[in-house]
Amino acid sequence: MEVMQVLHMNNGEGETSYAKNSNIQRKIISVTNSRLKEAILNIMCINNNNKNVPESIGVADLGCSSGPNTLMVVSEIIDIIDETSRKSGISFPELRISLNDLPGNDFNDIFRSLPSFFHKVKEEKGAENCYVVGVPGSFYGRLFPQKSMHFVHSSSSLHWLSQVPLGLGTNNAMSSLNKGKLYISHTSPSDVINAYVSQFQNDFSTFLQSRSPEIVPGGRMLLSLMGRSSIDPTIEDGCYYQWELLANALSNLVSKGQVEEEKIDSFNAPYYAPCPEEVKIAVENEGSFMIDRIETFEIEWDASVSSNSSDDKILLSRGQQVAKTIRAVVESMVENHFGNEIMDDLFSGYGDLVDDYIYRKKAVYVNLVVSLKHKE
Amino acid sequence: MEVMQVLHMNNGEGETSYAKNSNIQRKIISVTNSRLKEAILNIMCINNNNKNVPESIGVADLGCSSGPNTLMVVSEIIDIIDETSRKSGISFPELRISLNDLPGNDFNDIFRSLPSFFHKVKEEKGAENCYVVGVPGSFYGRLFPQKSMHFVHSSSSLHWLSQVPLGLGTNNAMSSLNKGKLYISHTSPSDVINAYVSQFQNDFSTFLQSRSPEIVPGGRMLLSLMGRSSIDPTIEDGCYYQWELLANALSNLVSKGQVEEEKIDSFNAPYYAPCPEEVKIAVENEGSFMIDRIETFEIEWDASVSSNSSDDKILLSRGQQVAKTIRAVVESMVENHFGNEIMDDLFSGYGDLVDDYIYRKKAVYVNLVVSLKHKE
Repeated sequence: MEVMQVLHMNNGEGETSYAKNSNIQRKIISVTNSRLKEAILNIMCINNNNKNVPESIGVADLGCSSGPNTLMVVSEIIDIIDETSRKSGISFPELRISLNDLPGNDFNDIFRSLPSFFHKVKEEKGAENCYVVGVPGSFYGRLFPQKSMHFVHSSSSLHWLSQVPLGLGTNNAMSSLNKGKLYISHTSPSDVINAYVSQFQNDFSTFLQSRSPEIVPGGRMLLSLMGRSSIDPTIEDGCYYQWELLANALSNLVSKGQVEEEKIDSFNAPYYAPCPEEVKIAVENEGSFMIDRIETFEIEWDASVSSNSSDDKILLSRGQQVAKTIRAVVESMVENHFGNEIMDDLFSGYGDLVDDYIYRKKAVYVNLVVSLKHKE
Repeated sequence: MEVMQVLHMNNGEGETSYAKNSNIQRKIISVTNSRLKEAILNIMCINNNNKNVPESIGVADLGCSSGPNTLMVVSEIIDIIDETSRKSGISFPELRISLNDLPGNDFNDIFRSLPSFFHKVKEEKGAENCYVVGVPGSFYGRLFPQKSMHFVHSSSSLHWLSQVPLGLGTNNAMSSLNKGKLYISHTSPSDVINAYVSQFQNDFSTFLQSRSPEIVPGGRMLLSLMGRSSIDPTIEDGCYYQWELLANALSNLVSKGQVEEEKIDSFNAPYYAPCPEEVKIAVENEGSFMIDRIETFEIEWDASVSSNSSDDKILLSRGQQVAKTIRAVVESMVENHFGNEIMDDLFSGYGDLVDDYIYRKKAVYVNLVVSLKHKE
């Protein structure tokens, strides 16, 4: 599976679309808002010598997806710059906004909503100098020209690896080592765990190396991604158990003859939820950024349920609603491997398992928030 | 009709798509290739004092559309820069490529073809430093940051006005003055002609004003657009008669009860094919660019027919093939006004009229090619 070709949030605005099922990611963005403000205030007095705001500010959102969350981030960045400019008694600076995601992302959807969004921004903030571009490509590689960025933001994206961990890909020697599982589990042999850990270290290092020449000295990055609190990746905590339940839902379809058992064995998600220590090691080894803060916070699996009361959703159980959130994110990949025809049954069965699980346990996603400064 | 909301080349890759029916525009790009080369050679020694190539070159294609032509322009620009760099014994400079079109353009289609395109470019040219972004928005307004562009290209786009000429819009006092016609015709009253002429002058001036702050001193623009040779816009020459025949095809549907006569009276195409003198006047009045060259060339309506021999096309008459070319371009607008249900009948009838016309006359599009230099 070529992650770059396959992975994208569900397009469009239908029932299973990411646009309609991204409240969790929205909450995560809200939680990190104070850190966003901190980072932007910092870059606005980046020229410490003369206390001047840069004349032209470059910001990027990596893994911007499409739907309401994309413009929410842009909107918050504009608000903070507007407020800071007013307080400093200067006019709104030139703002270059780059929205990045993989080429399969629905950029048309974003672009079509931009004219009305910017009409509003210009009326409310007088921000005439905003330029928005779409940048298709993997953030595990160069995306932007030299020293063009002051601030890089990424939310709910960096837990996606650049590829299925080396050696675990389909038709590979170790591809079936992780029997009955889709991600690291308590039954995973150490070869599987090591493959995941080292893929994460490689990818995160490549990410930092790619950003380093793009960001001005003193520039900032704010990254939030799925993670875990414990050093042990097989402990049932954080962003682990949603894959376990998805594996169980697939197993149930094996017994119904809808899925071949080997298909499950040979699927390994290109995903890794690191602990803070692993992120620290990667940043220190790469060397061009300093960690300003690294924090974790928890968010309940069904955190988005209460805030969503459209009629069609009231009929769904909490588990089914959680399943829709996960489906909007992982379907492109899961469908690529298991085929389109089982998707409805799979995510319906998954919803039942989630219902059962959250009835018994407190199910939370753990999120890491990392604030980084580019060394001078 | 809001041109910005409505106008786009036919999306996708189906039988009526622009991607499959844009050979004429491709030929136009080919014809202007020597001028493209000239302009890029010029910007590559823009720093005349030290004969250095700029370290980072910004180029933009305005009205890039989607389909094979989009990447053909990019590919030619890269080829010229590659060749020039090699001859000068320097490495490939950082190249920032901005692809612009209205927000309704199919950017997803472009973005999905970029990874394989750039894989090839990097292998063949070693051009590691290419950054491509999509920029949605009208070129009758600012698109790019201050002094970020060295070269701006636009082909087959600037004949589209920013709006239906002022006063001729639907529900406007003069909206039905141009009876039975869609564009300037020999029966058009002078009010209609004046409205078109002054809309073009305003729009072209706005275009130049918008580009001026974006382009570095000495930077270049190469613009090709539909035009005419004669000063009189009502003379049957150049890019006029295709609208006349489309009006006739609509009239034929009036007699069949498929279209209301008033609908034709109230449609005025947001299009203008200027003569070289009108372009000169607009450039001189605006004042920030110098005309390096302004040329006209002719291209036959059915120029694309011979080069297209896929089986399904052999069955179509030359007129029907020309009709498909026009349909791929104007359908979004015509459909918006007349409704989707008559499109097949309209363009089939149009094809018959084109067949008849090209049998009797030499039918050519006149193209203007304007090469401009930004004043120091």
